[in-house]
Amino acid sequence: MLSVEEALALVLAEIKVLPVVQVPLSESFGLVLAQDVVAQENIPPFANSAMDGFALLSKDSRLHAGQPARLRVIGEVAAGYVADRAVETGTAMRIMTGAPVPLGADTVIQIELTRSTEPDWVEILQESVVGNNIRRAGDDIRQGQIVLQRGSEIGVWEISILATLGWATVPVVRRPRVAILATGDEVLDVDEPLRPGTIRNSNSYLLEAAVRRAGAEPHRLGVARDTSESLREKFSEALTYDLILTSGGVSVGEFDLVKNILAEQGEMSFWRINMRPGKPLAFGHIGNIPLLGLPGNPVSSAVTFELFGRPLLRKMLGHTRLQRQQVDVVVVDGISECVMRRHYVRAHVEWHDGHFVAHTTGNQGSHMLTSLLNANALIIVPEGGVKIEAGDTAKAMMLDWPEK
Amino acid sequence: MLSVEEALALVLAEIKVLPVVQVPLSESFGLVLAQDVVAQENIPPFANSAMDGFALLSKDSRLHAGQPARLRVIGEVAAGYVADRAVETGTAMRIMTGAPVPLGADTVIQIELTRSTEPDWVEILQESVVGNNIRRAGDDIRQGQIVLQRGSEIGVWEISILATLGWATVPVVRRPRVAILATGDEVLDVDEPLRPGTIRNSNSYLLEAAVRRAGAEPHRLGVARDTSESLREKFSEALTYDLILTSGGVSVGEFDLVKNILAEQGEMSFWRINMRPGKPLAFGHIGNIPLLGLPGNPVSSAVTFELFGRPLLRKMLGHTRLQRQQVDVVVVDGISECVMRRHYVRAHVEWHDGHFVAHTTGNQGSHMLTSLLNANALIIVPEGGVKIEAGDTAKAMMLDWPEK
Repeated sequence: MLSVEEALALVLAEIKVLPVVQVPLSESFGLVLAQDVVAQENIPPFANSAMDGFALLSKDSRLHAGQPARLRVIGEVAAGYVADRAVETGTAMRIMTGAPVPLGADTVIQIELTRSTEPDWVEILQESVVGNNIRRAGDDIRQGQIVLQRGSEIGVWEISILATLGWATVPVVRRPRVAILATGDEVLDVDEPLRPGTIRNSNSYLLEAAVRRAGAEPHRLGVARDTSESLREKFSEALTYDLILTSGGVSVGEFDLVKNILAEQGEMSFWRINMRPGKPLAFGHIGNIPLLGLPGNPVSSAVTFELFGRPLLRKMLGHTRLQRQQVDVVVVDGISECVMRRHYVRAHVEWHDGHFVAHTTGNQGSHMLTSLLNANALIIVPEGGVKIEAGDTAKAMMLDWPEK
Repeated sequence: MLSVEEALALVLAEIKVLPVVQVPLSESFGLVLAQDVVAQENIPPFANSAMDGFALLSKDSRLHAGQPARLRVIGEVAAGYVADRAVETGTAMRIMTGAPVPLGADTVIQIELTRSTEPDWVEILQESVVGNNIRRAGDDIRQGQIVLQRGSEIGVWEISILATLGWATVPVVRRPRVAILATGDEVLDVDEPLRPGTIRNSNSYLLEAAVRRAGAEPHRLGVARDTSESLREKFSEALTYDLILTSGGVSVGEFDLVKNILAEQGEMSFWRINMRPGKPLAFGHIGNIPLLGLPGNPVSSAVTFELFGRPLLRKMLGHTRLQRQQVDVVVVDGISECVMRRHYVRAHVEWHDGHFVAHTTGNQGSHMLTSLLNANALIIVPEGGVKIEAGDTAKAMMLDWPEK
C-alpha cells in the first residue's frame, strides 16, 4: 500500500500549471497572478492632505507673543483639482482631504485648530510642523517597486492594489475546468424516484461544490452506466476538460469495466492507499487529460478529494501552498476505533480557552454521510493502530482555513 | 463617539433577513437553508453490502471439524439490482459492494476469505457473524429524522446530504444584490490615465471582491461626481438593490453634498466611531433600501467593511454567526503607535509551535494600502492608548476563518 504522502507526490508530479490568460480585474479574484506587478507611478501619486483644513508654511503657524498667526486665505483646493496658485508666506489655502498640497505650502493644519472671524482671513491656533497632515507622494508605493509577486493569490487586498495601479485586466493562471462523472447502475440522479436497490447521485453534487470551493470550474456530466458503451461515451465527452474526476468503480473486485475502459483509453494506476476512509484510488491520463478516480462511498469520496483532488487543482491553478494547515488539538471524546491504516477522523474543532478542542462527529463508517456534518477538520491518527484516549492531543487538518 | 459594538448593534437592528427563494441544488452552495430537512426515507434505503463477497447465513459459515463450509452459489447480485431469489441454508449468493443483501442472508463474507475450486460452489474460510459487512437500512439517517436545520449554511457536506435525500431544489435565503458606489471628483475609473490631482477607483473593486467573499452579489455602479445631479442620478439607480454601499463623502468637513443628498432622500445617521482606521461612518435608508457609507481612505474602507458591512450582509443572508472569530496572539514585533481610539492593526497571524504569532504589516496609516498585503488578521488594541510591547499577548480577529 502507498502512504498518503507517496500517492500525493505521484499525483502532483504529473500535474502542470495551466496556461496564463488575461482577465478583467473583477474576474481575477481568487486566481493566481502570473506576473510581477511593478508600480509605474508613485502611490499616492502626489503629496496630498490627510485632513480638511488649511495649507500653509509651517513657519507662518508660530504664535507671536501668545497670539495666533493671522493669514490671508488665497483660495481653496478640493480633491480632484490642482491649486491655481502657490501659497506664499503670510497666506494660506483652504484644502480638502485628498486634495494635492499646493506649491509653497509645507504643512496642513486641520480645520478644528483654526478660527475664521472675518472673510478671507484665518487664525492658526496651534503651530503645525513641516509635513503635518501631508501624505507624501510615494509614501505607500514607490515607482519601480515590485508590489505583488508572480504566484500570489489575488485576494481582496490585492484587487485594491491592482486597481490603484491601473490594472484593468490581469494576467492569471486559468481556472481549471473539471468534468465530474459518477459511475454505477445503482446511481440515479437527484430528482429521480428511488427504485429498489438504487441510491441517489450525491457524490457528483458533493464534488461539484468541493471543486468550486477549491477555485476550479465544475461540470457535472451525469452518471455512466456499467456498460462499455456508456463509459466510453462519457469518457469521450470528458476529454475536453482539464481534469476528469470520477467516483466509484475503482475498488478491488467491483465490476472491472471502469478499470478496463480506463486502461484501454489511457495510462492508469490503481492504488491502494494506507488510509481510512478511502483506500482505493485511481490516477492516470486519458489522452492528455489527467483523471483522478475516487472511491464511491460518499465519505471516502469527500476525504480523498480533500487530500488529493484539492492539492491537484491548486497546483493547476498555480498556487504554491497546496496543503491544508495542521494544528494540535485536544481530542475531548477520544477515538474508540483503532485501525491499522492511517485514520482521518471527522471532527469539529474550535478555539476554546487558549487551545483547540476537537469533538469527533460520531460513527466514522465510510457510508455515514452524517459524520461529515459539522466537521471542519480531520483528526489524523497515525498508521499502526495508535489509540487516542479522551483528552489526548493529536494533529488535525483544518478544512476551513486557507492552505499554508 | 460610538463604540464599534454600539454602531454594529444599531446597524444590525435595522437589517432584515431577505426573502426565501427556491434554487437548484448546485446553486444553493454557501447559502442558508430556509427550512428543516426531514428525511422522507431511510439512508441507506436498504441493507446493503460493504464488501464484494458472498451473502449467506451466518450459521452456515462455521467450520466443521476444522474444515471450511462448502456452499452452493445460487446467483449474483450487483449494485443497482435486486436478487431474484432468497438465500437458503446451504447456499450463498455472490454480492457486490452496495448491492442489496438478498432475503434470507444475514451476513456477508468478503471475497478474500473464500475459495472457489469448482463452478457454482464456494468454500467459506472463516466464520462470519450476523450483520458482518452489512450496512443496515437507516444506519446513517432514519426516516423522519431532522437531518439539517433551518438556518444552517449549505456547505459541501450539506449538499451531499440534500442530494442523497432527493432535494433537486432547495429553499434558501436569497443572496443580497449590493450596489457599490464611489464618490468624488478625484476618483477615476481603473482604465483611465491619471490627471494631476486624481487617483483611481480602488475602493469599488475592493468592495466588489469583499462583497463577493461575504456571499453576496456585487454590482459596481461607478463613480458619482461631486454634483447634486450626479449623486441623485446614481442613488436613484441604486434603489433597485438590497443594499447601497458607498465609499467617501461621509467625513466631517468634506464637501457636504453627499450628506445633503442622503439626508434629502432618506433617513441617515452620520457617526463618529471610536476606532482607527475608519472613524466616520454613515448608515440609514434611502427609500426602503439600507445604505452603509464607508470612509474614502482605502484601508478605512476595507476595515469598516469587515467590521460592519460583512456582518450586515450575513444577517441579510440569514446567518446567525455574524462575527469573525478572535484568538489570542503573541505580537512578535509589538505595536509602537499608541492611539486613544480602538486600533485595528493589520497583521499576519500564523500557528507556530503551539501558539498563534502575529507580525504587524508595517506603517498603519489609513492611506497605506500595502499595510493590507499579507494581512489575514486585525489585532485589536483596546481604547485608551494601551501599549502593546514586543512579545505581549493580544486579541486578533481572523479575517480568513469562518465566522463563529
